[in-house]
Amino acid sequence: MGIAERREREREEVRRKILDAAQELFATEGYERVTMRRIAQAIEYSPTTIYLHFKDKDELVQRLCQENFVKLIRVLSAQGTPADPADAIRQMGLGYARFGLKYPNHYRFMFLTPFAHGHQPSPAGQQAFELLRNVVAKAIESGRFRRAPVDTVAQVLWANLHGAVSLLITYGADKFPGCPAAPDLVEQVIEIGLRGLAADAPRGTWPRGVAPTPKKTKGR
Amino acid sequence: MGIAERREREREEVRRKILDAAQELFATEGYERVTMRRIAQAIEYSPTTIYLHFKDKDELVQRLCQENFVKLIRVLSAQGTPADPADAIRQMGLGYARFGLKYPNHYRFMFLTPFAHGHQPSPAGQQAFELLRNVVAKAIESGRFRRAPVDTVAQVLWANLHGAVSLLITYGADKFPGCPAAPDLVEQVIEIGLRGLAADAPRGTWPRGVAPTPKKTKGR
Repeated sequence: MGIAERREREREEVRRKILDAAQELFATEGYERVTMRRIAQAIEYSPTTIYLHFKDKDELVQRLCQENFVKLIRVLSAQGTPADPADAIRQMGLGYARFGLKYPNHYRFMFLTPFAHGHQPSPAGQQAFELLRNVVAKAIESGRFRRAPVDTVAQVLWANLHGAVSLLITYGADKFPGCPAAPDLVEQVIEIGLRGLAADAPRGTWPRGVAPTPKKTKGR
Repeated sequence: MGIAERREREREEVRRKILDAAQELFATEGYERVTMRRIAQAIEYSPTTIYLHFKDKDELVQRLCQENFVKLIRVLSAQGTPADPADAIRQMGLGYARFGLKYPNHYRFMFLTPFAHGHQPSPAGQQAFELLRNVVAKAIESGRFRRAPVDTVAQVLWANLHGAVSLLITYGADKFPGCPAAPDLVEQVIEIGLRGLAADAPRGTWPRGVAPTPKKTKGR
């Protein structure tokens, strides 16, 4: 390995270390409180070193958001998209929940951390939402979902799932107020959401596990 | 006012100040990071003073949780319970969302702060869940909801709403990834959840704003 290559690898390692430390600190101490100095301290570098890699906290946060959402997109699209939009939504939902429960610090950083006022959503964040939006559009166009604004429906599905995942991350399944979390909470949230959005459909086709209702007829 | 009374009032004022500062710190800096010393510092008291009021951080947190959930319960039951369980769920859901959006720091503390390992849910937290659980039980018993485990259904409704409220608190409506939050996101989350849980019902009765489906008949 040449000197230039080794230097590049070392540089990459330092960047990684900074990003990982920053993510953990943002998730546990909140965005506002964590300074570049605090991040440097955590990994025992000088603040100057950090500034060699990232212009400021904003750049660091943008980079982290982008990375995390790229990771999420990879999970969401890993298994290809099933032809049936309901199945596609199920698959994406389960992937999203797995991602959140496997990487709670990533999840907290991405979805539970209030950022600075000027923060702009990352391009990959937009793309991740776009994946969901596309499947929802397909569900509506194909008549599986009732007609409704695509963005709103996508946000409702996302909010529902985010609620389940973030409660599980925040409390742990056994510390819910009232009673422990249902073991199939995530699946139920998805299925009930699908049923709530379903158009009336011919018997036996939609949605899974739910008593179907006869096709809607004119004049009702 | 007598001396004893004045002392009691002053004591109450100090307790209030401690609790308010603690809540804000927990919500913004996370549970783990905030020490009794940090809270003392924030309100410019000595740590000793704080220990005169609260044995330790655990006691303080328990007290705060209890207070906040009492406040939430007051909001949830302010308007009485409508006879129709669906209306009761709508009313509770809207009250819950108003509470969260009006008191984001309370909300973050109650529902978005991971507590210490040994933390026990507060009695009022259990009670708040019980309010929802009771309405859900009524909805199932009366045949408005499909048969399903009451706890699971209550958790799904809660998770859905928590998702919408916490996204709105964390991002602000205009910073959602993808596109700004739908102005009626909370209402849609509630209505779609109700529809997803609804039993097939006679035409025109259930749920509001949704094309009704004919009554389920035997042998289908």
